[in-house]
Amino acid sequence: MENFEFVSPTYFVFGKEAECKTGEKLAERGAQKVLLHYGGKSAKESGLLDRIKASLESAGIAWVELGGVRPNPEIRLVREGVALCKEHGVDWVCAIGGGSVIDSAKAIAVGARYEGDVWEIYESKEPRTDILPIAVVLTIPAAGSEASKNAVISNDELGMKTGYANNGQRPKIAFMNPELTFTLPPFQTAAGITDMFCHLLERFFDDVGSVPVTDNLCLSIMNTVRAEAPRVLAEPDNYDARANIMWAGMLCHQGYAGVGRHEDWATHGMEHELSAYDTEITHGAGLAVMFPAWMEYVYSENPDRFAFYGREVFGLRPTGDVEADALSAIDETRAFFASLGMPTTLGELGISEDTIEDAIDFMLPTLKINKGEPFGSFKKLTMEDAANIYRLAL
Amino acid sequence: MENFEFVSPTYFVFGKEAECKTGEKLAERGAQKVLLHYGGKSAKESGLLDRIKASLESAGIAWVELGGVRPNPEIRLVREGVALCKEHGVDWVCAIGGGSVIDSAKAIAVGARYEGDVWEIYESKEPRTDILPIAVVLTIPAAGSEASKNAVISNDELGMKTGYANNGQRPKIAFMNPELTFTLPPFQTAAGITDMFCHLLERFFDDVGSVPVTDNLCLSIMNTVRAEAPRVLAEPDNYDARANIMWAGMLCHQGYAGVGRHEDWATHGMEHELSAYDTEITHGAGLAVMFPAWMEYVYSENPDRFAFYGREVFGLRPTGDVEADALSAIDETRAFFASLGMPTTLGELGISEDTIEDAIDFMLPTLKINKGEPFGSFKKLTMEDAANIYRLAL
Repeated sequence: MENFEFVSPTYFVFGKEAECKTGEKLAERGAQKVLLHYGGKSAKESGLLDRIKASLESAGIAWVELGGVRPNPEIRLVREGVALCKEHGVDWVCAIGGGSVIDSAKAIAVGARYEGDVWEIYESKEPRTDILPIAVVLTIPAAGSEASKNAVISNDELGMKTGYANNGQRPKIAFMNPELTFTLPPFQTAAGITDMFCHLLERFFDDVGSVPVTDNLCLSIMNTVRAEAPRVLAEPDNYDARANIMWAGMLCHQGYAGVGRHEDWATHGMEHELSAYDTEITHGAGLAVMFPAWMEYVYSENPDRFAFYGREVFGLRPTGDVEADALSAIDETRAFFASLGMPTTLGELGISEDTIEDAIDFMLPTLKINKGEPFGSFKKLTMEDAANIYRLAL
Repeated sequence: MENFEFVSPTYFVFGKEAECKTGEKLAERGAQKVLLHYGGKSAKESGLLDRIKASLESAGIAWVELGGVRPNPEIRLVREGVALCKEHGVDWVCAIGGGSVIDSAKAIAVGARYEGDVWEIYESKEPRTDILPIAVVLTIPAAGSEASKNAVISNDELGMKTGYANNGQRPKIAFMNPELTFTLPPFQTAAGITDMFCHLLERFFDDVGSVPVTDNLCLSIMNTVRAEAPRVLAEPDNYDARANIMWAGMLCHQGYAGVGRHEDWATHGMEHELSAYDTEITHGAGLAVMFPAWMEYVYSENPDRFAFYGREVFGLRPTGDVEADALSAIDETRAFFASLGMPTTLGELGISEDTIEDAIDFMLPTLKINKGEPFGSFKKLTMEDAANIYRLAL
């Protein structure tokens, strides 16, 4: 096991009507003026925003609002949020939504007490400590951003999408009410499940040997996601299934599933370029395409690891041929994503043989900036490897 | 899944030479004068205390010392610690040891800013917020106190042993170097492993139905402990085996393995009375005796749950007779503890047919004070049930 440092200080309020405790809990933590940050209409139309405002009001907490976060959240709205925080003396940022809204809120919280432009922090990766505290009311289980140290922001002007990691931007408190997810459309539910599962794959496959305590934990969450996914898709208003998926989504990216390991993150890097190239591509759908392709390209570095994964997650029986077992595990992974209704080829995402080389030419320069070269850990990848993996995903 | 609130804010520094970072990390957190709290000679003779002092000194942090914590830590030394903190203006308490030292440190930290006698807090269970921050250098993986919200303190004068739970006494930082555990004697290693395994059993068996995400996590840690236990006993200086056990011990009692459940804790309650009755009884050894007895007494409330446990942890094949499967799971549990060298009867702990009724008469009044009546959750137990379980453990 590798040496590590780890902290996950988020306070979780989990269960029915959790969002109605926002006022009480934020008041206990000294909040006086909150930026309510959200996406489109659903937070308003569902009545969620009103319930949160009522809770804040009864606790004597003031707020300002900024809606309009889009999938693959963009730096211009972050800048608006930063300006609002500075103008109104906001002391807490409250994200109401899924990963995009939370990531946008994290960037606002990081920028709110920074004198320069917040994008500079995303470029320099400078470790900041003066960050506004963040609360989350989670509505989409997927990104795990409600407890993670990570955020990813796009910059359309520069054609870039890049991440920033800092324990100081881990949310201080997360309100998680599974009932809020009953109305998520099947595609969004499935893309979220794919994203969370891939957060575990990124941790499980790396260049560190077996770390039993972490491996077992990681595999147990994979098995939960695998088992609950069909339940949640078949019965969207099954509280327990939604609750298991919601909590699992947090566990997938909180960090415990990777301690003592190097982790990999090559595939997330490649997917981020894909959804920067075409912002219509949902992150989870992009991962469903890219992960099996990455697996096929790299598995021969350590087929035993893939065979182990196949046994523990898909119940595959060893055939005596570890290469064959590894390939079966990859097939099962692809089939799992397909069973959720996810795409399995770049073609389904609108990238064809005619456009793939242009897409690769667009993506590699920023991939190299974002990930460096070589990148990844299970297998060290060059830009040429990345191009091959994109081609394999066609 | 039940509604819950949960937080585990401990910052972990895990790996080789972790203790040499105490100065740097405590200085970052503003520590100026630390109470170094430890047990017997081993912290001194091993050089550990000197390494920590050197680290503090190089960071400009002053300290006062209080050694002498015994197993089943007692309130008088806690009072000494509280007095030292008040006299010297101590601003952090640093425990160097295992569960007993950490629990004693927690009680000191809770009492240091309280005007009355700290035992009053243990009696009233009053929620306190003004608690000194706690650091831990862990030397015995067992109690999980390095990240838990719990502490248990004995009061010899009153013949009592009672607990106090408060998120504010969760250690702020834990230094965990598996190498420090290489020299633990086999009995202590085994008693620690028993204790951690029982922390999971207390969470797994309760009156809430299946909670898959939590169950799977809990079972995965059980499997880690089961697999690593023989390795660590056969090869005491196997770094990876010690590291897996050390991290697992923390996970067993941190809380994630029980969220969404009521948990049970009847057996811990009964064992605490046992080691209050005879302070020579090691907590883990007492649990090895009491847990299988509790299981036999209660399993018929929900034999399916025991059969499920048997399949997932001991690989037992269903026989078609769920009662038989449940009993096999209990046999395997007892056999696991025995394989570690733990006792399996009260007789081995020095309690005979001649003394058991006196012991029960001694234990029940404080058990009733500490746990109330009925107590437990998997099956609600009366004092008469408790007496029967003690008799079953003979």
